[in-house]
Amino acid sequence: MHVVVPYAPDAPKTRLEPVLSPAERSILARVMLEDVLDSIRGTGHEPTILSTEPLEIDAPVTVDKRPLTEAVNAALESRIRTASTKSGTPEAIAIVMADLALTTPDALGKLFAPETDVVIAPGRGVGTNALVVRHPEFRVDYHGGSYLDHRRIAEEVDATLETVDSFRLGTDIDEPADLVEVLVHGTGNTPECLREFGFELDSREGRLEVVRSAELR
Amino acid sequence: MHVVVPYAPDAPKTRLEPVLSPAERSILARVMLEDVLDSIRGTGHEPTILSTEPLEIDAPVTVDKRPLTEAVNAALESRIRTASTKSGTPEAIAIVMADLALTTPDALGKLFAPETDVVIAPGRGVGTNALVVRHPEFRVDYHGGSYLDHRRIAEEVDATLETVDSFRLGTDIDEPADLVEVLVHGTGNTPECLREFGFELDSREGRLEVVRSAELR
Repeated sequence: MHVVVPYAPDAPKTRLEPVLSPAERSILARVMLEDVLDSIRGTGHEPTILSTEPLEIDAPVTVDKRPLTEAVNAALESRIRTASTKSGTPEAIAIVMADLALTTPDALGKLFAPETDVVIAPGRGVGTNALVVRHPEFRVDYHGGSYLDHRRIAEEVDATLETVDSFRLGTDIDEPADLVEVLVHGTGNTPECLREFGFELDSREGRLEVVRSAELR
Repeated sequence: MHVVVPYAPDAPKTRLEPVLSPAERSILARVMLEDVLDSIRGTGHEPTILSTEPLEIDAPVTVDKRPLTEAVNAALESRIRTASTKSGTPEAIAIVMADLALTTPDALGKLFAPETDVVIAPGRGVGTNALVVRHPEFRVDYHGGSYLDHRRIAEEVDATLETVDSFRLGTDIDEPADLVEVLVHGTGNTPECLREFGFELDSREGRLEVVRSAELR
């Protein structure tokens, strides 16, 4: 399986603006990316990064400056072309978002296991956090409610589809409330990164929250 | 396995106040409860409701007016006492929250399958959405961050623990933003209930949201 991780180093995680400076958001995005890459390697696959900018990192990087949907569709089409040149069946391709900081090899294993034409791990808010495509005509559309759009597209091209039930794959780290999930469930280096930024769990108010112990911005 | 569903008919779903009247919140809570009961029955188990008030419903109801933690611990202790009177091993007991409107028999199957002393399906915000207890000394504490408290309690009584990775069990329906998950992923009667209240999916703003088509309150 070819596993692609889209990444945009230039505009990282704007919805975390209320709690993190631009420099911190860049660092966090990079640490989450590396955790995702490690989890993918833990499944025995070698990830490729699909980046909007050149990137110094210990993994193959394909640079495509177009928006996410266009860049991913170009990657899908390129796999199909390669396969038809070789008169073979296109290899499966997985698209795994770079901000899935709770991802583990086990969780990704649930995504990689089904043999259907399309496999989707939906995210909260009807997003598509991770995806496997085996069908040559399936294309992505990452705009609002992409999980439903991807179901519709799969139906239109007669592709079989399975939805993966995973809290880990369903939790993308987008907004301040998501940081508590990283501190509690994260297994890579992202929890430590947040602790270095001064974040810690606080249950004094009865409800567990993430607070910043010092204003470091 | 003895499967218990705690339910408080008197103060349902206060965090949905911005979008639902008290009467609607009561109806929604009841429909979600029935969906959860159906899913449990789909696994071959017969649920018991642990209610703060007497309840007209097609299932056994235990009434306990105490707060959630005390009532659930009383249920745990009662199972232990029954088992020791019979000089037997206590049967496993599962505690499944009544607002898990995305629950399916498959998702519950993942909770019921592990043979560890304690099995937890964490919810967003570090809650404990569903739990299986086999260890006689394990007790619950549903206050803030209960998932971490339950891990700690399991460690204190030397109980083995497994965490279940499920988006469906991890999604409790608490606040307005959760309603979109019901409309998209719900498999029981709760999506229809929301549609009858006038809710529908709206992606006109690019981001998928739930809107109310008419102000019916």
